[in-house]
Amino acid sequence: MSLDAVLARIDDDLPAATDRLLDLLRIPSISTDPAFKADCDSAADWLVADLSAMGIDASKRPTPGHPMVVGHLGDSGPHLLFYGHYDVQPVDPLDLWDRDPFDPEIQDTPKGRVIRGRGSSDDKGQLMTFVEALRAWKAVKGGWPCRITFFLEGEEESGSPSLVPFMKDNAEELKADIALICDTGLFESRTPAIVTMLRGLLGEELTITGPSLDLHSGMYGGIAMNPIRVLSRIIASLHNDTGRITIPGFYDGVPELSDELEAQWQGLAFDHQQFLEDVDLSHPAGEQDRTPLEMIWSRPTCEVNGIWGGYTGHGFKTVLPSKAHAKISFRLVGTQDPLAIRENFRQMVQDALPPDCEVSFDGHGAGPASGADTSGAMFEAARKALTDEWRTPAAYIGCGGSIPIAGHFQNILGMEPMLVGFGKDDDAIHSPNEKYDLDSFHKGIRSWARILDALT
Amino acid sequence: MSLDAVLARIDDDLPAATDRLLDLLRIPSISTDPAFKADCDSAADWLVADLSAMGIDASKRPTPGHPMVVGHLGDSGPHLLFYGHYDVQPVDPLDLWDRDPFDPEIQDTPKGRVIRGRGSSDDKGQLMTFVEALRAWKAVKGGWPCRITFFLEGEEESGSPSLVPFMKDNAEELKADIALICDTGLFESRTPAIVTMLRGLLGEELTITGPSLDLHSGMYGGIAMNPIRVLSRIIASLHNDTGRITIPGFYDGVPELSDELEAQWQGLAFDHQQFLEDVDLSHPAGEQDRTPLEMIWSRPTCEVNGIWGGYTGHGFKTVLPSKAHAKISFRLVGTQDPLAIRENFRQMVQDALPPDCEVSFDGHGAGPASGADTSGAMFEAARKALTDEWRTPAAYIGCGGSIPIAGHFQNILGMEPMLVGFGKDDDAIHSPNEKYDLDSFHKGIRSWARILDALT
Repeated sequence: MSLDAVLARIDDDLPAATDRLLDLLRIPSISTDPAFKADCDSAADWLVADLSAMGIDASKRPTPGHPMVVGHLGDSGPHLLFYGHYDVQPVDPLDLWDRDPFDPEIQDTPKGRVIRGRGSSDDKGQLMTFVEALRAWKAVKGGWPCRITFFLEGEEESGSPSLVPFMKDNAEELKADIALICDTGLFESRTPAIVTMLRGLLGEELTITGPSLDLHSGMYGGIAMNPIRVLSRIIASLHNDTGRITIPGFYDGVPELSDELEAQWQGLAFDHQQFLEDVDLSHPAGEQDRTPLEMIWSRPTCEVNGIWGGYTGHGFKTVLPSKAHAKISFRLVGTQDPLAIRENFRQMVQDALPPDCEVSFDGHGAGPASGADTSGAMFEAARKALTDEWRTPAAYIGCGGSIPIAGHFQNILGMEPMLVGFGKDDDAIHSPNEKYDLDSFHKGIRSWARILDALT
Repeated sequence: MSLDAVLARIDDDLPAATDRLLDLLRIPSISTDPAFKADCDSAADWLVADLSAMGIDASKRPTPGHPMVVGHLGDSGPHLLFYGHYDVQPVDPLDLWDRDPFDPEIQDTPKGRVIRGRGSSDDKGQLMTFVEALRAWKAVKGGWPCRITFFLEGEEESGSPSLVPFMKDNAEELKADIALICDTGLFESRTPAIVTMLRGLLGEELTITGPSLDLHSGMYGGIAMNPIRVLSRIIASLHNDTGRITIPGFYDGVPELSDELEAQWQGLAFDHQQFLEDVDLSHPAGEQDRTPLEMIWSRPTCEVNGIWGGYTGHGFKTVLPSKAHAKISFRLVGTQDPLAIRENFRQMVQDALPPDCEVSFDGHGAGPASGADTSGAMFEAARKALTDEWRTPAAYIGCGGSIPIAGHFQNILGMEPMLVGFGKDDDAIHSPNEKYDLDSFHKGIRSWARILDALT
């Protein structure tokens, strides 16, 4: 019955746990923007202080970028590693937020109570579900369930440049039996899920230069090449009319679904119409011969995440700009090789340049896809614990997003990654008005208590 | 010999005239940005005060936008109208300026002394050449050369929304024998010129909306349509592979050059290689079967002046944006109908939209091309006066830019426009580090004194 005591303690402590999360959400730890460097540091300090107050041996560990937070507890039983990230996405466009993204609050909505603020779902709210589960466990039982290593990152939203070197340098310290990762969601906002298939990510920024300075489009319009026109032609050429990506060799290493997985996914009865309707769309816009679940879980993509060039302010300016820029990312699956794709993409752009134009590239993260081997007993134990808490059979699913850490745990530390999270599709992560359902937070904490009980 | 006395007075007064211009350049009268509304008003006040101090009956005249400055002088002889504009272009990207754009100064450069600052060439420096010529004339002769009406605008760089209504409402007051317009340049920076052929301008801003909010490209990438991809395809489709514009009916009303004009332009021996080299280009990028002078003077164009959408800040953000935007302008020639082209362009964009995407349009200025009838005696008299000042035969030329006022003077007030200006190709108008050669300013003032003498 002591699990019930822990769950009861979690229920009682929810207001205090929520206040702690709001505290952490007030720190604007945007990792991608150098202006917020000190805030990232403050978020790491906050976590070290909170873990230390629970009696965990926690410390802030420097990297060339934002610091890691590492903590250790327990001295017997299985050894679990827990991963989360304390950094958050930028908040622009700020004018679309209903309130200051870093002045979080609990709000009543027609769908229930939510925690509103940047990072509430991705990933501060999620990582605190695990911390709060342990806090309740300790309060009730006076000790720890097993050996646990905390590994909290501050660069997840900016490509994790320091992650792999840090893992390699500290491999002995970080090795455990399994890696728990809390950065994913419920399936269709209602079914508890363990993600076993993750897409990889390749990011590229390119700048096309035509004339050496901005020109008057009256004086030079018609005779000088416009780099926005060149960039648009290149972007337009990246997909063919059936939605297939045209970069040479791009589909090398893209596997077809196994019959088993195909059958399992069909059983999920994914309501893609509702999924699209939630964002006022109706037509699956990917490869025309693929199912909606394939489009988001098992097929690679190419997206323009940002584009800019010339005059973008009020009114009109008849400029013929010198430069045009785009940020483009690729979601990768199977054994697609990010570095080979980067090379082929760059070559394709070079080949498409007209005379007088130059291109420069700035490579961002490059991580392959990954998947978990679910044959170990811990996976089924965790799936049953989730089923108990949510009273709905938990599922093994894919995820369109990229969590490179999962592959790194496998490749560098030899651990299977177990991805469990409680986000919902309408959490607006990476968007204005991000929220985390109070129910996700509460049942998330309870879920971890059940999983810890099941694994130990 | 009294013209010589006026010219001598101009030479003596140059330092004071330059100081007055620097004063005017300090006022950041950016018409396109509402943040600078009061500054536009201040520039109008400055001009009213300066003209009034010379004994001209000048006043600031309100419009729904920025005010006009109107002044009258003289009571006999031919009646000339003089047009210039006191508003200036925006200054971004500010980091490419070597100094504050609105802290102008005289600089020594390898090519001679220049007046550096936003508006020095376009158009404050140019309009002050005429004012200073009149000031010297009055100082030497104690009276005016003829009847002159000043008509100075503050919205030229933002599409002149108030111009036509104001001209119509005040037609009787503004009518004169001819309209002098000082907003053009020397041919190839060395040959004095009267522009007799001007391209028209049509501006369009479009916003394409896909999903109703910014999405996470991991969650929705591959299934949701990306509006940047849609916009890029549309822009890429506006030109075919030979540089021809593909909008239906676009070339209706585009005339071929007369044999006479073709011969005259060949005589100009335009050095297009140098023209392109000045901005580090080498290949004429317009319609492949047209000469470089045709590309910039007598052929229509389509340019993207600005594009933006998604995340454009530091680092990377894997957003699949809700909206993508572009500002597109068309230079028009002959009898191309701006409103018909606007309609056909919008229809073409609508027809190109995939399911789930919407487009909204914001129309900016729409003015047809115009040309002057040079058969009147005043044109030859002015051409001779320019030839005398610059010791180089003055030429009748085309201009790729759009000065809709020229057509308005013809169509609304029945006056031929005479476009005389002293800008140089390297003035960097509309760009960072705009300048006006002190020599352009000085000889420009002298040119107007000679033209006034020749016309009266």
